[in-house]
Amino acid sequence: MRKSALTGALLVTIFASPALANDSVTKLTADPNNWAIQTGDYTNQRYSKLDQINRDNVKDLKVAWTFSTGVLRGHEGSPLVIGDTMWLHTPFPNNVFALDLNEPGKIIWTYKPKQDPSVIPVMCCDTVNRGLAYADGMIFLHQADTTVVALDAKTGKEVWKAVNGDPKKGETNTATVLPVKDKLVVGISGGEFGVAGHVTAYDIKTGKRVWRAYSSGPDDQILFDPQKTMSLGKPVGKDSSLKTWQGDQWKIGGGTTWGWYSYDPDLDLIYYGSGNPSTWNPAQRPGDNKWSMTIFARNPDTGVAKWAYQMTPFDEWDYDGINEMILADIDVKGEKRKVLVHFDRNGLGYTLDRGTGELLVAEKFDPAVNWTTGVEFDKSKPNYGRPYVVDKYSTAKNGEDVNTKGVCPAALGSKDMQPATFSPRTGLFYVPTNHVCMDYEPFRVSYTAGQPYVGATLSMYPAPNSHGGMGNFIAWDAGKGEIVWSQPEPFSVWSGALATAGGVVFYGTLEGYLKAVDEKDGKELFKFRTPSGIIGNVMTYSHKGKQYVGILSGIGGWAGIGLAAGLTNPTDGLGAVGGYAGLSNYTALGGTLTVFSLP
Amino acid sequence: MRKSALTGALLVTIFASPALANDSVTKLTADPNNWAIQTGDYTNQRYSKLDQINRDNVKDLKVAWTFSTGVLRGHEGSPLVIGDTMWLHTPFPNNVFALDLNEPGKIIWTYKPKQDPSVIPVMCCDTVNRGLAYADGMIFLHQADTTVVALDAKTGKEVWKAVNGDPKKGETNTATVLPVKDKLVVGISGGEFGVAGHVTAYDIKTGKRVWRAYSSGPDDQILFDPQKTMSLGKPVGKDSSLKTWQGDQWKIGGGTTWGWYSYDPDLDLIYYGSGNPSTWNPAQRPGDNKWSMTIFARNPDTGVAKWAYQMTPFDEWDYDGINEMILADIDVKGEKRKVLVHFDRNGLGYTLDRGTGELLVAEKFDPAVNWTTGVEFDKSKPNYGRPYVVDKYSTAKNGEDVNTKGVCPAALGSKDMQPATFSPRTGLFYVPTNHVCMDYEPFRVSYTAGQPYVGATLSMYPAPNSHGGMGNFIAWDAGKGEIVWSQPEPFSVWSGALATAGGVVFYGTLEGYLKAVDEKDGKELFKFRTPSGIIGNVMTYSHKGKQYVGILSGIGGWAGIGLAAGLTNPTDGLGAVGGYAGLSNYTALGGTLTVFSLP
Ligand SMILES: O=C(O)c1cc(C(=O)O)c2c(n1)C(=O)C(=O)c1cc(C(=O)O)[nH]c1-2
Ligand SMILES: O=C(O)c1cc(C(=O)O)c2c(n1)C(=O)C(=O)c1cc(C(=O)O)[nH]c1-2
Repeated sequence: MRKSALTGALLVTIFASPALANDSVTKLTADPNNWAIQTGDYTNQRYSKLDQINRDNVKDLKVAWTFSTGVLRGHEGSPLVIGDTMWLHTPFPNNVFALDLNEPGKIIWTYKPKQDPSVIPVMCCDTVNRGLAYADGMIFLHQADTTVVALDAKTGKEVWKAVNGDPKKGETNTATVLPVKDKLVVGISGGEFGVAGHVTAYDIKTGKRVWRAYSSGPDDQILFDPQKTMSLGKPVGKDSSLKTWQGDQWKIGGGTTWGWYSYDPDLDLIYYGSGNPSTWNPAQRPGDNKWSMTIFARNPDTGVAKWAYQMTPFDEWDYDGINEMILADIDVKGEKRKVLVHFDRNGLGYTLDRGTGELLVAEKFDPAVNWTTGVEFDKSKPNYGRPYVVDKYSTAKNGEDVNTKGVCPAALGSKDMQPATFSPRTGLFYVPTNHVCMDYEPFRVSYTAGQPYVGATLSMYPAPNSHGGMGNFIAWDAGKGEIVWSQPEPFSVWSGALATAGGVVFYGTLEGYLKAVDEKDGKELFKFRTPSGIIGNVMTYSHKGKQYVGILSGIGGWAGIGLAAGLTNPTDGLGAVGGYAGLSNYTALGGTLTVFSLP
Repeated sequence: MRKSALTGALLVTIFASPALANDSVTKLTADPNNWAIQTGDYTNQRYSKLDQINRDNVKDLKVAWTFSTGVLRGHEGSPLVIGDTMWLHTPFPNNVFALDLNEPGKIIWTYKPKQDPSVIPVMCCDTVNRGLAYADGMIFLHQADTTVVALDAKTGKEVWKAVNGDPKKGETNTATVLPVKDKLVVGISGGEFGVAGHVTAYDIKTGKRVWRAYSSGPDDQILFDPQKTMSLGKPVGKDSSLKTWQGDQWKIGGGTTWGWYSYDPDLDLIYYGSGNPSTWNPAQRPGDNKWSMTIFARNPDTGVAKWAYQMTPFDEWDYDGINEMILADIDVKGEKRKVLVHFDRNGLGYTLDRGTGELLVAEKFDPAVNWTTGVEFDKSKPNYGRPYVVDKYSTAKNGEDVNTKGVCPAALGSKDMQPATFSPRTGLFYVPTNHVCMDYEPFRVSYTAGQPYVGATLSMYPAPNSHGGMGNFIAWDAGKGEIVWSQPEPFSVWSGALATAGGVVFYGTLEGYLKAVDEKDGKELFKFRTPSGIIGNVMTYSHKGKQYVGILSGIGGWAGIGLAAGLTNPTDGLGAVGGYAGLSNYTALGGTLTVFSLP
């Protein structure tokens, strides 16, 4: 048995009732001194109870130490901290460092996977990785090439390895993984390569595959129970997915699962969303393309779905539904509800009952959103729960080889994977957003395994008739579906936010600033120019009684793909290069962790 | 004519007496708000008159801003600052950024030279570059592939280009350049490839070559006047170089010029040193191998040498003589002298009269030095000015294929190119040193153009029976030839030092710490963990009344070649990989500028 201060947790798990969450994660995330999971805790709230750094003193924050990762290109995710140790990952080649917090920067061990660089060109949106997970004395890494590795957290030695996909078919990984109970739940990328998305659970001790749930296909592959799996209050019925696709298109139909995962231990449900249907040319895939663009609630032991809700049936804009599901207990129209809040790429902020999947709120969280007039809330209507699409912005209606102009948001959404945060202090969600529109011209494309299967030419630009910038940082009332305040940013906010008990909300900017704002009104309290543009997520921890705030900088991701991959043609990088060209006046590549504290 | 706030200086130069130094450099370096030349000023003292940051408050120093260069591998040199602009260079591919100090991190222009990456394997000691120079409204870059480029300082547009060497023959560049009068003086690297070293002057306005002075060869190629060029008080006489080589070996004889350049405007002399004779196997090149390992004083208009002094005749250990020549006016044995102080790789600290080349002091600046018992100072002796070699450590006496063990210092010297600083306040020199010894086994090697021409296998390790570390930071009295104080370091101090009027001396460490110590006793007053190991040189400037200290981090150089080039075999990297293997427990690659100020 692995020797570790935390081995006790493993023993407990073995004898624990199967309805309990993975004990080590629950215990470690309950201690605000740690940052033991990418998402802060299972709820994905990214809220820290630490309050040493607060609204009054955050202006005095200074850099405590820094660490270069040795890798260029986009740095997403954040380090993990448990006790005296920090674990840090890099983009491809996905190196892992264990750092000694007693001597900041001192390296305890390094793990350098050998990966075939041929995976790089099959990654749609930069060679990012959203970070490691920890459970039961192990660190879990899901590599770009879809190898899932469990490492001894103390030594960095491999415990097990599993292979989740095949990069030769365009299957790659950028997401973090979710350790839950005795399983490790992992997703897959490749929606721009016609990959059929799925979620897979591995035995956390052995790496043996336990179940796999596809986003599209027959019921036994999507793990739907036609009678018991619900959608909008009704059983989904037989072949709920197959019925919505023409022919075999579902086999190359996307719906990848490269976003974030949450877990409710009481309901014993995991939550995540699926991505765009393939191709981006809607004419090639008539139908609702279920269950792409869907929020799923699944049982972690069996993978069977309790409920599902498709936000954007028959996507015409690449509005992947993979953004994080934040679990919170909030007031909705005067009633305390156990909800799931989700800021979708399509520009709508959704609030659902997370036990039943009941739709409570769906409102625009960026006023620029124009492809829809909103969602039908009348349960008696046949289109209950569906968005109304504005003809002018329907790339399907306008047809192939027609450039549909001025669609808001752009394909990268009013918000992409950059995670929002929820503060139980204010009851508000703080959301890093994109304020970007696009022209979208679909074209016919044929499928070849491992080749791009995109089928649209895009160009992106700041939302017109607005403040001229490409982003806002907003506070959102998810009970009402209302923006409480909004702070403009010159570029999209591509960094994950952090709310703290100190009344401060942190986020990073693409130019490279770490910013701290007041939870009440968004007023800027502090900013610091980190070495490179920020697409990582702000985290906080406490060591020997001192609170630290950590952020990875390193420009890249979809927004920064021009810099990261050295592209300059405006429509390259799936249309992002032109829109974010101005970034080269602000920042250059380079991965660095910057850690702040009070003096 | 180029438009620039500094254009006036150019006009002055045109009409100035030829005995004046380049006016713009003299004027700009006289203003301590600027850091207008890599070496601080023409004297190479690297002393700043700024005193806002001082012994008492340096402990409060905090990071003001940071900037990632987007390039991995070793970052040597420093940025330049003039007025509101900072110019920053990178290692290969030698990108240049002009940054706006009014909005730190904002990029005014970027220059990205296209260079053939085949130059990388012909760079002996990492793809470093020791930085840009400024004069007359132009920024000068000397690329790895030996292309010399003049850029408009305001716009980054090319003004002229010249090609100084041929990488196919192993000729490369890592050094900065010296703008002096109406010339630009540049050196060359390649001693490990049998390159015949030379110094070349280009017309600063046009890039036309004016003169070239080889280190070895006939008098008209080394620009020696047999009657007027002096060495140790005597004319060198005819064929002073040729006589000391067997056959044509001088044509592939090394003596490269990749170090630092200084200038005395009153004496109108430039100073620099030449590197090791090729090969490292002494048996292949009997003789003194003049003028390798030599300090030169040359007229900048003609290149003709006024005097020369060879420190290590017939080198048997790769003790290149290229380290900086610091010009200062100090007390030597009770007398005020205009001296040149030089801390040589061979472990001796030299003080010479810089007008005549008279040898005043030559003492060990690391007590570990064992290859010599010292230099003969009796002018009547035939070996006047020569070091006494200890037989046991003579790799020539021990012969080919014999491993000579325990030689101190190692090939990278008691000090390598990392420049020392002089404080006129204390009259002391502050010297970053190596405390490293070696085993050295010469072997026969044959010459092929562009192929390594090394001829020795080395291994390196900390000086035995000492503090266990591989470096010291010392204060040196160059009048007496005595260590005043010495602070041990775990690794060699591979960073250039900075002394200031605040009584503080700064340097960086290979683990990545920027340190500030007291000029009086070396007591540590401040340290900060920058993102990566430091081999850059500390600089300071002032902007809008605030003093800043800047340092490039980015592990590499010869000491860091294992990390920089991904080598792990201990004798690889010319023997440095094994000695510095421990660095991988402390740092990873990545180029970042970190700028500090008081709160
Ligand atoms: O469909 C997919 O499989 C897929 C994968 C990824 C990814 O793995 O990063 C992105 C996207 N799509 C995508 O649509 C998108 O906007 C996006 C942004 C980013 C990023 O990290 O900045 N990744 C991805
Ligand atoms: O003989 C040469 O031409 C030559 C060149 C260089 C260089 O250009 O960096 C170094 C050396 N030699 C050398 O001997 C040496 O110790 C060294 C250290 C470094 C460095 O930047 O860390 N360069 C060089």
